Amino acid sequence: MRKDSAMSIYEQNLDRNPANYVPLSPVSFLMRAARVYGSRTAVIYAERRYTYAQFFDRARRLASALANVGIGKGDTVAIMAPNIPEMLEAHYAVPMLGAVLCSINIRLDAAAVGFILQHSEAKIVLVDGELAPLMPTSGPRVIDIDGEYEGFIAGGDPQFPVCLPDDEWQAIALNYTSGTTGNPKGVVLHHRGAYLNAVGNALTFGLSPRSVYLWTLPMFHCNGWTYTWAVTLAGGTHICLRRVEPAPIFAAIAEHGVTHMCAAPVVLSMLIHAPEQARRTFPQTVQIATGGAAPPSTVIARMEAMGFAVTHLYGLTESYGPSTVCMWQPELDDMAIEQKAAFMARQGVNTPTLQDATVLDPATMAPVPADGATMGELMLRGNTVMKGYLKNSAASDDVFAGGWFHTGDLAVMHPDGYVEVKDRAKDIIISGGENISSLEVEEVLYKHPDVMEAAVVARPDEKWGETPQAFVTLKPDAGKVTEADIIAWCRRHLAHFKCPRFVTFGPLPKTSTGKIQKFELRSVASHN
Amino acid sequence: MRKDSAMSIYEQNLDRNPANYVPLSPVSFLMRAARVYGSRTAVIYAERRYTYAQFFDRARRLASALANVGIGKGDTVAIMAPNIPEMLEAHYAVPMLGAVLCSINIRLDAAAVGFILQHSEAKIVLVDGELAPLMPTSGPRVIDIDGEYEGFIAGGDPQFPVCLPDDEWQAIALNYTSGTTGNPKGVVLHHRGAYLNAVGNALTFGLSPRSVYLWTLPMFHCNGWTYTWAVTLAGGTHICLRRVEPAPIFAAIAEHGVTHMCAAPVVLSMLIHAPEQARRTFPQTVQIATGGAAPPSTVIARMEAMGFAVTHLYGLTESYGPSTVCMWQPELDDMAIEQKAAFMARQGVNTPTLQDATVLDPATMAPVPADGATMGELMLRGNTVMKGYLKNSAASDDVFAGGWFHTGDLAVMHPDGYVEVKDRAKDIIISGGENISSLEVEEVLYKHPDVMEAAVVARPDEKWGETPQAFVTLKPDAGKVTEADIIAWCRRHLAHFKCPRFVTFGPLPKTSTGKIQKFELRSVASHN
Repeated sequence: MRKDSAMSIYEQNLDRNPANYVPLSPVSFLMRAARVYGSRTAVIYAERRYTYAQFFDRARRLASALANVGIGKGDTVAIMAPNIPEMLEAHYAVPMLGAVLCSINIRLDAAAVGFILQHSEAKIVLVDGELAPLMPTSGPRVIDIDGEYEGFIAGGDPQFPVCLPDDEWQAIALNYTSGTTGNPKGVVLHHRGAYLNAVGNALTFGLSPRSVYLWTLPMFHCNGWTYTWAVTLAGGTHICLRRVEPAPIFAAIAEHGVTHMCAAPVVLSMLIHAPEQARRTFPQTVQIATGGAAPPSTVIARMEAMGFAVTHLYGLTESYGPSTVCMWQPELDDMAIEQKAAFMARQGVNTPTLQDATVLDPATMAPVPADGATMGELMLRGNTVMKGYLKNSAASDDVFAGGWFHTGDLAVMHPDGYVEVKDRAKDIIISGGENISSLEVEEVLYKHPDVMEAAVVARPDEKWGETPQAFVTLKPDAGKVTEADIIAWCRRHLAHFKCPRFVTFGPLPKTSTGKIQKFELRSVASHN
Repeated sequence: MRKDSAMSIYEQNLDRNPANYVPLSPVSFLMRAARVYGSRTAVIYAERRYTYAQFFDRARRLASALANVGIGKGDTVAIMAPNIPEMLEAHYAVPMLGAVLCSINIRLDAAAVGFILQHSEAKIVLVDGELAPLMPTSGPRVIDIDGEYEGFIAGGDPQFPVCLPDDEWQAIALNYTSGTTGNPKGVVLHHRGAYLNAVGNALTFGLSPRSVYLWTLPMFHCNGWTYTWAVTLAGGTHICLRRVEPAPIFAAIAEHGVTHMCAAPVVLSMLIHAPEQARRTFPQTVQIATGGAAPPSTVIARMEAMGFAVTHLYGLTESYGPSTVCMWQPELDDMAIEQKAAFMARQGVNTPTLQDATVLDPATMAPVPADGATMGELMLRGNTVMKGYLKNSAASDDVFAGGWFHTGDLAVMHPDGYVEVKDRAKDIIISGGENISSLEVEEVLYKHPDVMEAAVVARPDEKWGETPQAFVTLKPDAGKVTEADIIAWCRRHLAHFKCPRFVTFGPLPKTSTGKIQKFELRSVASHN
């Protein structure tokens, strides 16, 4: 009974046309916000305030000014700045031209910046005054945001005709991975995914015109996990902040009625340990999404006590930031804090706009049993996955092998369908033939009352092959804690073979995005 | 400086693949809900309750059973039923096969049903027991939902492999317009638009896993304005209801903690005038979206007093239901009820997932001035507009002329960007060369304390060309009201040339979807 689909009555004279098909692009969000919320506050930065009408006006002027200097479809526009309004403006102006925005991590050194500007073929770079010294002497044209930007956009046309992409698969952004070893890779994102990931964030966190979003997560980090676009979609207010420090964060929350924010775990820790004079109380509950590491129960409890509700997310630059979320289930409301924390340690389930997140055996691509114990690789699939790596088809082919994006994270699937990452593939410790999850050991270390930060790596061992070595930063007010104390603590809470046999105290080396650099710790551990 | 786009670095080795591209389809919503909310209640209907895992299981069995009888891609599956769980199941099972769901209005007569079954080339029709007598004696195979359905799906495979469409532009649903004159037209909707309109509803109304949605709006009406899919996207609970009557509506709201519902204005009126013994109180505020006519201030006030928050929507079968919404602005919270009602009478702004809704001069396609006074035609453009009319390319070409969907509604654009419909193009009354909006006159009639329903049409007039004639239904408890009383009321509230010169009392003729049939009233008015 099946017909040739070419013959179907549903395929005849029912084609796409300009009235029923528009490429998906987050540029549309600002066009609509300017119309629907034109007189509402879009952006606040210190004493500066822009309505959505003004935000759109400034973005169109910037697009026009960039077009005047020759920027067009397929060109790369770089920007290097903290969370200031110009970053938001670039997130709309550049895609409006069909150009591609390359937001550069502001913690990189001049050599890394130089590599990115060259590799990305950037035609122009907008740079914050504080960062101007990092610019190469030869290279793309540099616009100093503090000195030249206002003059540059003043010459732009506020009625500049906004272009949506010809095709929603067109590139919108180029984000370089932090690259703990070797040169960073350029992750190319598309308009379709940017639109959909922003929708996914807005749905998951219930963003609305009443939302007030505080920018602590860097916008150069996966385009601020696409909140650069999601907050505008909702018609909420962006609160910009140059420096991520406790006093201005608490002040912004109290003064602007912040409802939502995203932050790396280090920011949560900073807020918890903030000095008394930096703290402010506030009546609202602030939804705070965190990723990169599961929040320990003490962090959750102390954040809740201060007025925050914590959600654990997981994602990568390759997946526009958030791709799984530890979705709360209403029946968990009454759980004790320890149970909550155990649940919240999971990376969770795919966001509504990602098709699938699952755990597969990377050798066979078969799903692992949903038993919460069998390890496999966390894999993603859907419209919020990158186009691929720029000029690196070999790397793209590797991560897309078998029709799934390979995250490189080792995970288990729980019986209820929630995934939990146990380790980076390269962070697993194999001791006497047994796998030891460094995350599991770190979770125990974080529960020690005197430990502020901890990392565990493999130390080569003649007898066991590898054995865990812990690196620990104590809290400023910690008493005397010895290696033996830490090992004893671990032996009370872990199988003995999992316990570190060596403990080193001191500050931990971190990447420019605040991730602990385990490769450096491994290097230390192997040279002991 | 522009490069040939074929040469762009962003076009090289960055193609779509199964890991980063999946066709948009609301079928994905149920796949995810079954995984994320598997043990939560998806559907409640009287004593029946299904979890999301069971809902998915039943939908897959139905898909499998349909495949077993030869249904596949591009085939039409009709259904004729009230708001029962089987309607929801069909909304997923049929698209899972690449087939097209044709939900038939249950208030149609056998002749109209026969026309639709033939025109749609339906291969099979699922029909509620009460409606079985409407089925033609020859035609597609009929499955009686009361007698055969459970047996039919019992033979289906709950592990049936779910198919997403090859292309998101593929047809998902075929909905016939109510067709006040002539044969109804078949509106063909696509997977992409169904996905996006559901997203738009979820964003606009803040649907979440805690949402409880009551089905009073018929699911056969634009697929329940796409809430059939939106509630599942959010992981909320569908409350099914066979009959739209005050007692079961109030009971469902009170017993199931309903948070959201959609309803035609006649349902609001029914709730307001419900007999005392049918009413129930409830602690929550119920978000109720209404469309088809602006809710008068008395309706808004009385609904608010009962615990509802009313939002005015606008849309058509051709736009998947809601395409504009009178978005609330936080600064309007403290308005007096009369001002609120005046604001809420507007159709508003495009939903987040429609690209644009504006008012154009249909002759020149130029925007009318945003002065709240100049009339033009309301036009829509974006991804939540139909593919076109089935087997009627002439009608499709007409409504898509100039790259916009022509709604046929006459509207003004307010200075703040909100549109307001003044009349259907064919409902405008031209008297002595002046345009009279029948809606404006009706709004005044609705404010009369004894009027329950009213409609105004043109009556041919030798002197003026046309003159307004009013048709009025009085409230059951109304006192004696004369034609002269009504005319005097209008002259107190309207310019005299707009006032009806003739008033007829009695019930109003309605279409099967509850719309007042003005063409019948016009026929009465012309034969006076």
